[in-house]
Amino acid sequence: MKITVLAGGVGGAKFLLGVKRQLGWDPFGPAPAARQAAADAVTAIVNTGDDIRLHGLQVCPDLDSCLYTLSGEADTERGWGRRDETWTVQSELRGYGAEAPWFSLGDKDIATHLMRTRMLDAGYRLSDVTAALSDRWGPGVKLLPMTDDRVETHVVVDNPAANTSADDTPAGTEPTAGEADFSEPVAAGSTPAAAQPEQVALHFQEWWVRYRAELPPHAITPIGADAATPAPGVLEAIADADLILIAPSNPVVSVGIVLAVPGIADAIRVAAAPVVAVSPLIGGAPVRGYADKCLQAIGVPATAEGVGRHYGSRSGAGGTGLLDGYLIAEGDSADVPGVRVGTAPLLMSDPDATAEMVAACRKLVGV
Amino acid sequence: MKITVLAGGVGGAKFLLGVKRQLGWDPFGPAPAARQAAADAVTAIVNTGDDIRLHGLQVCPDLDSCLYTLSGEADTERGWGRRDETWTVQSELRGYGAEAPWFSLGDKDIATHLMRTRMLDAGYRLSDVTAALSDRWGPGVKLLPMTDDRVETHVVVDNPAANTSADDTPAGTEPTAGEADFSEPVAAGSTPAAAQPEQVALHFQEWWVRYRAELPPHAITPIGADAATPAPGVLEAIADADLILIAPSNPVVSVGIVLAVPGIADAIRVAAAPVVAVSPLIGGAPVRGYADKCLQAIGVPATAEGVGRHYGSRSGAGGTGLLDGYLIAEGDSADVPGVRVGTAPLLMSDPDATAEMVAACRKLVGV
Repeated sequence: MKITVLAGGVGGAKFLLGVKRQLGWDPFGPAPAARQAAADAVTAIVNTGDDIRLHGLQVCPDLDSCLYTLSGEADTERGWGRRDETWTVQSELRGYGAEAPWFSLGDKDIATHLMRTRMLDAGYRLSDVTAALSDRWGPGVKLLPMTDDRVETHVVVDNPAANTSADDTPAGTEPTAGEADFSEPVAAGSTPAAAQPEQVALHFQEWWVRYRAELPPHAITPIGADAATPAPGVLEAIADADLILIAPSNPVVSVGIVLAVPGIADAIRVAAAPVVAVSPLIGGAPVRGYADKCLQAIGVPATAEGVGRHYGSRSGAGGTGLLDGYLIAEGDSADVPGVRVGTAPLLMSDPDATAEMVAACRKLVGV
Repeated sequence: MKITVLAGGVGGAKFLLGVKRQLGWDPFGPAPAARQAAADAVTAIVNTGDDIRLHGLQVCPDLDSCLYTLSGEADTERGWGRRDETWTVQSELRGYGAEAPWFSLGDKDIATHLMRTRMLDAGYRLSDVTAALSDRWGPGVKLLPMTDDRVETHVVVDNPAANTSADDTPAGTEPTAGEADFSEPVAAGSTPAAAQPEQVALHFQEWWVRYRAELPPHAITPIGADAATPAPGVLEAIADADLILIAPSNPVVSVGIVLAVPGIADAIRVAAAPVVAVSPLIGGAPVRGYADKCLQAIGVPATAEGVGRHYGSRSGAGGTGLLDGYLIAEGDSADVPGVRVGTAPLLMSDPDATAEMVAACRKLVGV
């Protein structure tokens, strides 16, 4: 069974734990050799629009969430980053008044970014780097960045500096004051409001982490996506799959960005394998994150049905969508023309529970 | 009193503590404002030939030793690096099989290198970066890199891979074995001896730290020095000084590299201020480091007299040297034609003891 999954970060990684478990693998370890011989394989096509260059380091939050989670190295209590992490470098960087103090980087994590940045600077592709990092960690799943090209999701918002005083930014997120100021200009600087544009485009991470998605988005744009090409292996993983799953990741800023890379959505539409998405909403709310706010930004109702219709049917009326099946939470309802809708408990509380979701997806399309 | 000091790393930093103390300053803090008003100033011209790019980070060991020591942030027991340091990033990098596992980088230290590398990549000069880092730490001494140009000291040795098995390299310095190998080729690789050149040029740090200077050097060469120019402020600090001191740093790989930058030695020869060097040898041996081995490499006797004659007199017979005065350890003797030689206890056991050395230097030349 070859399963290919479109995934974001934390939610995508949790879902992949369940995919591994459903195949009978250790969710937190490498794929068993015997299973590989039996041609079981899981490939994840991972969002890289969240990637950000900080302190000269190329940070890939979604790829790393998958890498750490699937190899048992993630901090499951905190919900992101490495377990047994330390924070010395970050504390020092803040002492220097370095850029983006609102973005947390652990020391173990920084080592990953140092290795990645070094390899990228040496000319390796992000997919090469991801394979090399996977060699160490053994996530079991073949992790593919959606593209090796630079794509960065930006969010257009009313300029927070034009409408509020700097004191209105979340507490504890401002650079430490100091004699030396190494920080880059940010949108919410100290320039008088009169000199500020009405709207600004923030890097996704600034909008998400610094402003906690509290600034209503006018547009969410994956800059660079129109010129990007799928990373090596992405289209093959879609074409060769026995089952294609869309993880319950954010449909706009995770799955939506993967689908914005030209060629990926088209490949899914013509794939031989059935395609099943899992709803990211339970009772109209995301379990984690701000999917509801992102859906509002693109005019999609923040309901299971809204997301299902947004993905659409690839075989039913219209035929321009992606799905054959759609799994929603027990208690929710969704009418998505041309798509078989199933229900199951959707809380990914542990790999066993998530494996049941994967089993329900398989049952829904009979593979 | 304006004092300009030629300095290397740890020894140079310790000497500068004594210079500050001798002026009545807090050795571990910034210069007092009142003293600055009185035109007391200390400038250090620091060796950058030890600098090395590791993991994509520009590491400046001598500048950082001065920065950390003079601002009270150094680990005085270990003798280098930051106090209360942690080592998470390094442990992770070794887990990846990253390059140069023999070179220790603490987490706090890495933050410094991240800030520096970011600024250099943005186009700032090393002297700008050093000033910015000093703004945070307040070393009291104006720290100037000898040059903003890239100079890297290399040491020509018999190829260790051609003459010994890999097992002869010092214990604990080999890369951690792992599936992923990110390490760069190094001289002492696993290539068969027959394919290896007879001699190789190692970066100074590899020779010093990895091989502990145990490979006899055929030549010690500051690559890039012939095309380098003194950093902004260096020649002015020499011309405007009331006293020029050469710290008891390594005469070959620290002071010798500073003097290899065209223009610096000439400026010292014509400076208005008297020039006094402090012997780095006590009883023919360095207190710390491998000055004796370095001196042998350039054919200079590893004695106080040998070093004194190597620096030479700028006013006496010949007149091609640098010194007016030379301070050697009690119990040593040195006949250096044209140079006033004084004796004093030379163990820099604390800033008070070192201040006595500085006082002896001043007395020797009457400033």
